[in-house]
Amino acid sequence: MSTLGRAMSKFRLAVVQLHVTSVKADNLSRARRLVKEAAGRGSDVVLLPECFNSPYGTSFFSAYAERIPGESTEVLSQAAKENKVYLVGGSIPEEDGGKLYNTCTVFGPDGKLILKHRKIHLFDINVPGKIKFQESEMLSPGNSLSVFETPFCKVGVGICYDMRFAELAQLYSRKGCQLLVYPGAFNMTTGPAHWELLQRGRAVDNQVYVATASPARDETASYVAWGHSTVVNPWGEVLSKAGAEEEVIYAEIDLQYLADIRQQIPITTQRRSDLYTVTAVQEGSG
Amino acid sequence: MSTLGRAMSKFRLAVVQLHVTSVKADNLSRARRLVKEAAGRGSDVVLLPECFNSPYGTSFFSAYAERIPGESTEVLSQAAKENKVYLVGGSIPEEDGGKLYNTCTVFGPDGKLILKHRKIHLFDINVPGKIKFQESEMLSPGNSLSVFETPFCKVGVGICYDMRFAELAQLYSRKGCQLLVYPGAFNMTTGPAHWELLQRGRAVDNQVYVATASPARDETASYVAWGHSTVVNPWGEVLSKAGAEEEVIYAEIDLQYLADIRQQIPITTQRRSDLYTVTAVQEGSG
Repeated sequence: MSTLGRAMSKFRLAVVQLHVTSVKADNLSRARRLVKEAAGRGSDVVLLPECFNSPYGTSFFSAYAERIPGESTEVLSQAAKENKVYLVGGSIPEEDGGKLYNTCTVFGPDGKLILKHRKIHLFDINVPGKIKFQESEMLSPGNSLSVFETPFCKVGVGICYDMRFAELAQLYSRKGCQLLVYPGAFNMTTGPAHWELLQRGRAVDNQVYVATASPARDETASYVAWGHSTVVNPWGEVLSKAGAEEEVIYAEIDLQYLADIRQQIPITTQRRSDLYTVTAVQEGSG
Repeated sequence: MSTLGRAMSKFRLAVVQLHVTSVKADNLSRARRLVKEAAGRGSDVVLLPECFNSPYGTSFFSAYAERIPGESTEVLSQAAKENKVYLVGGSIPEEDGGKLYNTCTVFGPDGKLILKHRKIHLFDINVPGKIKFQESEMLSPGNSLSVFETPFCKVGVGICYDMRFAELAQLYSRKGCQLLVYPGAFNMTTGPAHWELLQRGRAVDNQVYVATASPARDETASYVAWGHSTVVNPWGEVLSKAGAEEEVIYAEIDLQYLADIRQQIPITTQRRSDLYTVTAVQEGSG
């Protein structure tokens, strides 16, 4: 491997577990400050939470929605450029053509928008006496798988509930992604039950790194996020995990380690494609 | 739901974590005794471990291999019939046409063979300094997905390493299986790392019950099994889990609970089949 190749086989990922309030300007300025802090500690890629500029809830999406580009994505673009990082901008409520989406934007170190992922699977659950939420009352779904390139590796993007659908992660890993990122806001029911399990499952089944970014927990909010942003390695181990409060966590993504795991337990080459296959039906366009 | 329907919505599963020795006759008689014990405690379906009649290891497969029907499967057939249970006979080394397979046989309460599953994915791993095993040195792979019907629900069968391949479980659940069973013998490296994680992942991703049956741990064996046979519910919770020694564990499989989970978090109906699909390429015949 070349010197460049070796240098590129490791990079530093930061996950910002932002405390999100109802004041958009505060959310944006705090996000900007924490991206800078993460970059100052040597991060190459920085990940923000789902709905980082707005409280999470069907009653907020419309009021906080923006077009892209717009105020919030301008801040993301500047933060990426100023700090020379790949910035996965969690998500924001997006307005486009009279419809609302839950949308993740990704910016390169030059501040340019390199990817837009609209949440594919809308979060419609009803656990009696625990949690009821119908995202589809307000939002429209995206129709695309979303992968972006970095000098280190390809990265696959999903938002929160997208993580429950194993096929998305399977297709991302077949497309060569070695890191999957899921901005997400699990709640106080599904969080303790499934948040870490799903991440570790995606990681070990696909032998990839998996990172999630949650808003910090706010017990006064109408929707209380679980927190516990996490980074998992391809062996299924938790490398780094936040508590419930606002904090930035860090993890080293080691692509040589990933390659070693794939050699040791060679499931990526032993799949029986003569018996089954996971297929992208169409790539979609939004 | 009819009275019959209600009665059939719950059943009792027993998992026999057998202590397997190098004496085949002892393995068979102990298995028979424990199936009887499990039936005596009201079990409807009984699951035995991978390689229940033979030590696990490439050096043993040939010496312990049998044709089907043969000595070991006759014992299974009789045990199923005597105790009026569905008996998932773990696996045995099978000889057929000069080839060896790692094969699970399933018998109905009338003692008839209702399914034969040959391990599809051969276990070829090499974790330096920890565990190296090349099943493919001695065995040939099966080429079929394997589902059987009971009056309670459909059941999908995999053997050990088959569990690492998410597609198999996805296809089984798409075919209507509500219980997946994996006789398996994870080891002292992959056991603590992945045994429970894989089961919980399969359960929560597909909203099915998952059961594994391991041989009891024998520190004197050339291949030391992890033990910890387990039953997991569709919420991803461990219902029942063995220690390292020989024991029988029990779990109630509640198909109404499974239906409730699928309604609460409706991932089975929210999959984006317009974007991706998991497909059986061919069903195969061996």
